[in-house]
Parts: sequence; structure tokens; C-alpha cells
Amino acid sequence: VPGASGLPGEFDLIARHFAPLSAGMPGALGLTDDACTYAPPRGFDLVLTVDAMTAGIHFLPDDPAELVARKLLRVNLSDLAAKGAQPVGYLITTAFTAATDEVWVAAFAAGLAADQREFGIGLMGGDTIATPGPLSLTLTALGIVPAGRALRRNGAKSGDVVLVSGTIGDGALGLKVLRHEFTDLAPVERTFLADRYHLPQPRLRLGQALRASNLVHAMMDVSDGLVADLGHIAEASGVGAVLEAAAVPLSAAASSLLADAPDLLPLILTGGDDYELLLTAAPDAVNDLLALGTEIGTPLSVIGTITAPAAKGKVVRVIDRDGADLDLATGGYRHF
Amino acid sequence: VPGASGLPGEFDLIARHFAPLSAGMPGALGLTDDACTYAPPRGFDLVLTVDAMTAGIHFLPDDPAELVARKLLRVNLSDLAAKGAQPVGYLITTAFTAATDEVWVAAFAAGLAADQREFGIGLMGGDTIATPGPLSLTLTALGIVPAGRALRRNGAKSGDVVLVSGTIGDGALGLKVLRHEFTDLAPVERTFLADRYHLPQPRLRLGQALRASNLVHAMMDVSDGLVADLGHIAEASGVGAVLEAAAVPLSAAASSLLADAPDLLPLILTGGDDYELLLTAAPDAVNDLLALGTEIGTPLSVIGTITAPAAKGKVVRVIDRDGADLDLATGGYRHF
Repeated sequence: VPGASGLPGEFDLIARHFAPLSAGMPGALGLTDDACTYAPPRGFDLVLTVDAMTAGIHFLPDDPAELVARKLLRVNLSDLAAKGAQPVGYLITTAFTAATDEVWVAAFAAGLAADQREFGIGLMGGDTIATPGPLSLTLTALGIVPAGRALRRNGAKSGDVVLVSGTIGDGALGLKVLRHEFTDLAPVERTFLADRYHLPQPRLRLGQALRASNLVHAMMDVSDGLVADLGHIAEASGVGAVLEAAAVPLSAAASSLLADAPDLLPLILTGGDDYELLLTAAPDAVNDLLALGTEIGTPLSVIGTITAPAAKGKVVRVIDRDGADLDLATGGYRHF
Repeated sequence: VPGASGLPGEFDLIARHFAPLSAGMPGALGLTDDACTYAPPRGFDLVLTVDAMTAGIHFLPDDPAELVARKLLRVNLSDLAAKGAQPVGYLITTAFTAATDEVWVAAFAAGLAADQREFGIGLMGGDTIATPGPLSLTLTALGIVPAGRALRRNGAKSGDVVLVSGTIGDGALGLKVLRHEFTDLAPVERTFLADRYHLPQPRLRLGQALRASNLVHAMMDVSDGLVADLGHIAEASGVGAVLEAAAVPLSAAASSLLADAPDLLPLILTGGDDYELLLTAAPDAVNDLLALGTEIGTPLSVIGTITAPAAKGKVVRVIDRDGADLDLATGGYRHF
């Protein structure tokens, strides 16, 4: 229905804002065709992942369009990082509302363009529709990995050490900052946390280096929450896991908040939106892995161990400094 | 938010209804991982396409879930057919509402299962979220085609003949049947038209045979409307086109309606939702192409010619039996 929204027609919109993003991808055919083509290099598998985001649920309706675009792209790139894959490109579906204007679309495309440059990828295809509901977005990301070498969740072994990259809890705390909580926190730390929510850092270089090390037994990215995602690894691998809460790496901002309000611990451990890499490996591989993290510039921390399968009860035990069980009220983000 | 809808948790929902659909796709990893893997056979390009559908816009809210699933899959398979590709599998994103219940999801999955069997494909991955808006769905389909041989829109040459498969207009007329129009039409023909709207027939075998013939200069599927889509070919190829309205193939049901109401012609020629193949080829290839359509069981019809680029005015001229220009009020479906 032309004119039903504040936007130019579909074809003009694609030509103006999205086709330029496909310039580096010959198989995208300038976004003027029914489909795109791509051939992975010989000896490589394709890795595919898809994530959807809806305004009001996965991002705040007044979040800047540029940041929405970059987060959408980055949560998918984080999935590729978890497989040890190198990103190639993406397809995007946008469902715009009657309130979406061309300024929003231009800023959204500018965000995609910025991250395309940062990660060396290009737009390959997509679809643009109108929706009477909230603005919603779906992105399918493509990557490549040496054939048969994609890392998976299901290889954790009893006796393995559990490691995680970066720091945990910043994303969930950042969302609270954006909702005007923690007003006593220093502005620089408020900004740090908000940025961690808005702009995840997909650990692509680390993921590829970990894959190439051949030392990792199981890996995934932390999106639903550290406890829930460690549970996903344990369940897929048929093992149990112990998470040492005091060993979980925290940013200065998160440490400062937690010191004042110890009841933030469950949020930090289960809030999600971290987009760090969670992995398991044999104990004798730990030193090499820690060195690898340091070399890449994304430190790894040892946070727990893989155990025999839990006979009953929780797959993941969370323990405090004294080895006593911690009871976290919630197990992690569920999409509904 | 568990319990926010009538559905079981996300992970249960995937395990019960979607994971079984991935059984034939080893790279889908049982839908328990961050991403899936796939390697096209050596010498083949991957072909990727994505389409989104929203309740109330792209399908009727009370359409049976099984048919919604099959239409979503088939409109994407139709894009693969237009490239001459063989389908392999798909990723699906579902945004369910608070009103979606498990009966709906089970019927939706049953529809996918039926078409997976029919087309020899499997589910590779996806994402499931909740939405406060209307139920919406996004599907990314993967196919393969011999390297460098995917058909495109941009190869039409002045002097080419324009052909189309099957019959045109049934989908748009079928939507009107479902909206309780044409009540005088015989029930068998009403059902035929409604089926053509609900259940497109992606012309996969024909598309692959046309690609293998090496006779086709340009091809796409008819989704936005015959006139608009012929315009897409003409624009991408830098040529003009003449469409002979009287030569457009019609079903018995569409012929019968048009005989009683000649003002249905614009709807038939521009309504879209046809999912037939539209192609151009040199005049001396026409007999071989017509024979190929007959052999496959999906007849082709000659419906026009490709001309020099239009100096001004419309890229596509639509003419009547006497060669006079027809003025169609609308140029085809726009997504907004």
C-alpha cells in the first residue's frame, strides 16, 4: 500500500539505503533479484544463524536506530564467534511501522554500514515489509569454518574446567542504567554499562583462535544468562557443572554496584545479554587458553568445573566462596 | 517471561515441535546449538532467499496454521525455483503472540513437515520469540545451483520472447473468494482459486530444467504481479517489454469470472501471488521451451516480447487483442 507510511516505496527504500550495503558482495546482485548466491571456499563449511528482535522486547523503542542495527548484527556475529567461524555476510528482514520514517531507516543503515566495515562483512539480501505491530527485525548471518571444525555445545567432559571471556553482568546492569537505575554510579561507569547493553562485542577473533587451538571441548556464547547457558552446555553434553560465583569476572562498574548491593548477584549471573564466550577444556589446557586470551586482548577466566551428570536436581550448581550452594531465584532469560 | 503466553517454554516448544523437523539435516545439530552448518557439494553455489509474513497483511488471521506454514515455505521455494536452484533446507523465525496456543504451533509444524516431505528438504535452524504485535514469521531458504549458473532477472534482450508458466490471476482471485466474493462461482472453482491463494506450487522442477536448458536469458517468479514483475525484468535488463493481455494463460475459473466481469483484468494482470515463472528467451528457443514445459507437466505460454528501452513512459506496455494500449490502474503489489 504505497503512502500508507511515512516511507518512500519499498523499491526506492532498498535502492537508497540497503543496496549500497551490498556493494562488496557480488552474489547479492545489488539486491535487485529474487535471491543471492554464495560459495564457501573449498574445504570450508558454511555456518548459519538467525535472530529476531522486536521493539519493546529486545530493544527499547527509543534506542537510537544506529545502535539497534549494530546490536542486531552483533548478537548474530556472537553466535558465529561461538562456532569459531569467520563472518561473511548477512540477510536482513525489516518490518517497519506507520511511524517509521526515512531518518530512522537512514540511521539504521548507517549503523549496519559502520559494523560491516568493522567486521569485514556485507549485506547479501533481505525482505522489507510493513507491520501493524511493533517494528521488528530478523537477521540471518553467514560465516565459514574449516570443514567439520565448528565448535559445539555438546563436547564438555567430566573433569573439564569452565572458562568465560571478558566480564559478566554488564549488559543486564546496563539495561537498568538505561531505565534510570543506579543513579549514584559515576557517569563514566553508567556509560560503560549502557554501552555494554547497546553494543555487544562479538568475540570473533577469540572464537576463531580458540577453534584453531584444538583445545576447546564445548563452546557457546552467553546470551540467555551465564547460569542458563552453562546449563545448556551441561545438558547437551550429558554432564553436570559447578559455577564458582566469586570467580566470575566482573567489570569495575559491576564490582562497584555489587559491593553496595549484594542482591544484584543473581541478575549478574543470570541476566544475559553478555555475548561473551563460555567454554570447557581439559585442566592441562588451561594455561595455554589463558595465554591465548591475553594474546588476543580478550582475557579468559576460570569460573568452574564440569562434573559427572547430576543425579537429581539442578544441572548447574552455583557455589559461593566457601563452597556452599547459592540459590538463584531465576535460571536465565526465556524468550517467552 | 515464562507463562506470559499459552505456550510451553521456548526450549520445550522447540524440542517438541521443531527439532523433529531437523532430523534429516545433520548440520542442524538437533536445533540445540547456536548455529547450524552446511557445505554445498563441490562445484555448486549456495542460493539464499528470505521472506517475511505478518498475520493480517500476508495471510488471513484465521487461515489454517498448516496452510500458513506451507505458504511461507513455498513462497521462498518459488524464489529458489526462479534461480533454477534445487532446495536444500531452511531456517525459520517465529514471533508468537499471547493468543498463540500449542495446537496452532503443532498444526504449523505439521504443515512444515508435509512440505518438507514433498520437496525433500529439512529444517536447519531458527529463532522463536514473543511479540505484542500480530503473529509474524520469517523464513530463510537455502538451495544449490551449479557454480555460476543461477538464473537472473537482468539478461533479457531486445527481440526476446516473454513466457510464463501455468496460469495467472488465480491467487488474487482466490483471496477474493476467501473474502466471500464471487459467490455465484461453482464450488469446485471457488475451492480451486482459494487453494491457489493458500498453497502456491513452486515451479522447482521446471526452474531447474529451464536453467539446465541454457536457453533462458532472464527469469524470476511472479509474486508482486505479472505487469510489475515483467517491469522488474525489463528495468534490470535495461530494455522495454510488451505484454499481450489476451495471451496471458488463465485457469477455467479465472476465464469464467473474467467473461462475466471484464473489469477483473487489471486484478488478474497485477494482483500477484501467482508464484509462476516468468522468463525471456530468443525466438528460436521458444519451441524447445514449450516442449520442455509440456514434458515437465507445467505448460509455458508466450505472452509478449522484449523491446528496445522505452524512450519515455512505461517500461511495460500492456496491449489488447488489437494492439491498442491498455491502461491498468495499478502497477502491482507494493509491500508498503
